[in-house]
Amino acid sequence: MEQSQIPKRTKLGQNVVIEEGVQIGENVTIGHNTVILKGTIIGDHVIIGSNCVLGVKKSGNQKMRTSDVKHPHLTIGNNTKIGNNVTIYAGSKIADHVFVADHASIRENSMIDSQTVIGRGAIVELNTSIGKRCTVQTLAYITGDTILEDDVFIGPCVSMSNDKYMGKKPYELKGAYIKKGAKIGNNATLLPNITIGENAIVGAGSVVTKDVPANATVVGVPAKTIK
Amino acid sequence: MEQSQIPKRTKLGQNVVIEEGVQIGENVTIGHNTVILKGTIIGDHVIIGSNCVLGVKKSGNQKMRTSDVKHPHLTIGNNTKIGNNVTIYAGSKIADHVFVADHASIRENSMIDSQTVIGRGAIVELNTSIGKRCTVQTLAYITGDTILEDDVFIGPCVSMSNDKYMGKKPYELKGAYIKKGAKIGNNATLLPNITIGENAIVGAGSVVTKDVPANATVVGVPAKTIK
Amino acid sequence: MEQSQIPKRTKLGQNVVIEEGVQIGENVTIGHNTVILKGTIIGDHVIIGSNCVLGVKKSGNQKMRTSDVKHPHLTIGNNTKIGNNVTIYAGSKIADHVFVADHASIRENSMIDSQTVIGRGAIVELNTSIGKRCTVQTLAYITGDTILEDDVFIGPCVSMSNDKYMGKKPYELKGAYIKKGAKIGNNATLLPNITIGENAIVGAGSVVTKDVPANATVVGVPAKTIK
Repeated sequence: MEQSQIPKRTKLGQNVVIEEGVQIGENVTIGHNTVILKGTIIGDHVIIGSNCVLGVKKSGNQKMRTSDVKHPHLTIGNNTKIGNNVTIYAGSKIADHVFVADHASIRENSMIDSQTVIGRGAIVELNTSIGKRCTVQTLAYITGDTILEDDVFIGPCVSMSNDKYMGKKPYELKGAYIKKGAKIGNNATLLPNITIGENAIVGAGSVVTKDVPANATVVGVPAKTIK
Repeated sequence: MEQSQIPKRTKLGQNVVIEEGVQIGENVTIGHNTVILKGTIIGDHVIIGSNCVLGVKKSGNQKMRTSDVKHPHLTIGNNTKIGNNVTIYAGSKIADHVFVADHASIRENSMIDSQTVIGRGAIVELNTSIGKRCTVQTLAYITGDTILEDDVFIGPCVSMSNDKYMGKKPYELKGAYIKKGAKIGNNATLLPNITIGENAIVGAGSVVTKDVPANATVVGVPAKTIK
Repeated sequence: MEQSQIPKRTKLGQNVVIEEGVQIGENVTIGHNTVILKGTIIGDHVIIGSNCVLGVKKSGNQKMRTSDVKHPHLTIGNNTKIGNNVTIYAGSKIADHVFVADHASIRENSMIDSQTVIGRGAIVELNTSIGKRCTVQTLAYITGDTILEDDVFIGPCVSMSNDKYMGKKPYELKGAYIKKGAKIGNNATLLPNITIGENAIVGAGSVVTKDVPANATVVGVPAKTIK
């Protein structure tokens, strides 16, 4: 792998580790003890906190599925900010003006579009697409194979799943499909393969067991339409 | 900024980073790879684990609000213990004999009073006041603008929110106000701007949509008084 | 304590800290900035990510209970993989072919048997026994004093508790006892001291307030048998 390209004016903290083949844009700040793994591509004006690990290669044991990555490297767009103690995998693409808060983790084959916020301690699993200007709040869990269109709001501690049979039998894993402008209240539970329509609202603590129509508001266990 | 004051007998791990203007009390232990950022003030007999980042400056992108900090630095009281992989922001004050467990995160303008426990992976957002002898259990989420009086118990995975409209329109963000001695069961959901009365009990998994009177016990979705 | 035993072919990242008395097997990889504390025993072909802290000694303040550890050290079996930003305590035993994902945390006196997966950000508290081939999904919370038999599936964000009185009065802390092959859906809530029978299924978002018989499926708040 080729040598890393690190502009002289890059502001590097202490004990920063930069592996081979890393490309860093103009005016980038990298915090103390942060690790940038092989081949990671970082845009201009990016600010990264301390103790992060960026460009992690996928791993697992024999009980876990693997997924081929479409892009071999991690790419981070211009003006994006990454907090502290964050892990992001190779094979994902973070666009411009994104904010990834402390303790968040983003796996491979995830695409996070511009101006989106990934909250503190939030986890984004593999094969996920998140649109522009979304908010994924603190400790929310975006399961694998999930699609969030633009302007979606995922409240704190929202939980999703993508495996109807919980590992009991083979099943094409499918997370939620959440359409433009939908809002999911804090600690709501989404079952696998649910579609939430445009501008729909899911109340806090609801358990969503079937599709929600556009513009509907649903609440309760199981969630029912109230208007 | 003035030089840091580090007593000679401070027990420092390997690769510890201490920025300028840090003040460290007597008999302090700091674990390996921990980062103490500018201006942090650490009391006597404090024990800090490995891989922490203390004194983080607030950040965000254009979708996120900012909050002026009342105290420019992070202050950690005497005899307080901080675990591993913890992040705490500048502008917060942690009192004496507090325990902050591994992977926890505490944002700016938070006041954590003496003898309180902030659990493993728990997250305390900005502008929050937590009283004496409280327990905030593992993975609990204390949203911004929340008040916990003394002796409050927040169970594991409790979720709170402070934004009634989920970003849809302007709204004065308000978290819960939880009065002295109240206890919130694990994985309960609290809506914004709820008051939980003194010594009230919220059952595990309940969704609290309105104020709970003092000494009441509420359970269910939505939570109703059972005694 | 005796000197550490580190085979020459160990693949060590940058800034790795290895304290005294550590034993490392053949063909081990340790990522950048990872800290291996006193006395930790690591098997053959183990892969450990960056920014981990392994072999943490138990801690707490006067509000927290302590537990004597049966094994003084942390032991990690052959072919096990540990992700990034993971913390594991001294006094626990991780068997062979286990996968512990990024940001997970495992406390003292925990026994994790072979081929089990501990998910991203999942937390396993003290005095816990987890069987073979279990899956503990992302952000799941295994409270202290919990038993999982073999082949158990714990969905994402599942929450447990072990303290019926939430610290109000003395109580023998007891987590769930989850029998062979049982499956718990995402964001389900388990009350203290519940037994889930063999091959039982708990639906997503359910609140389980009493024992679940073998082979039963329960859903809702409180959870009721549907077949």
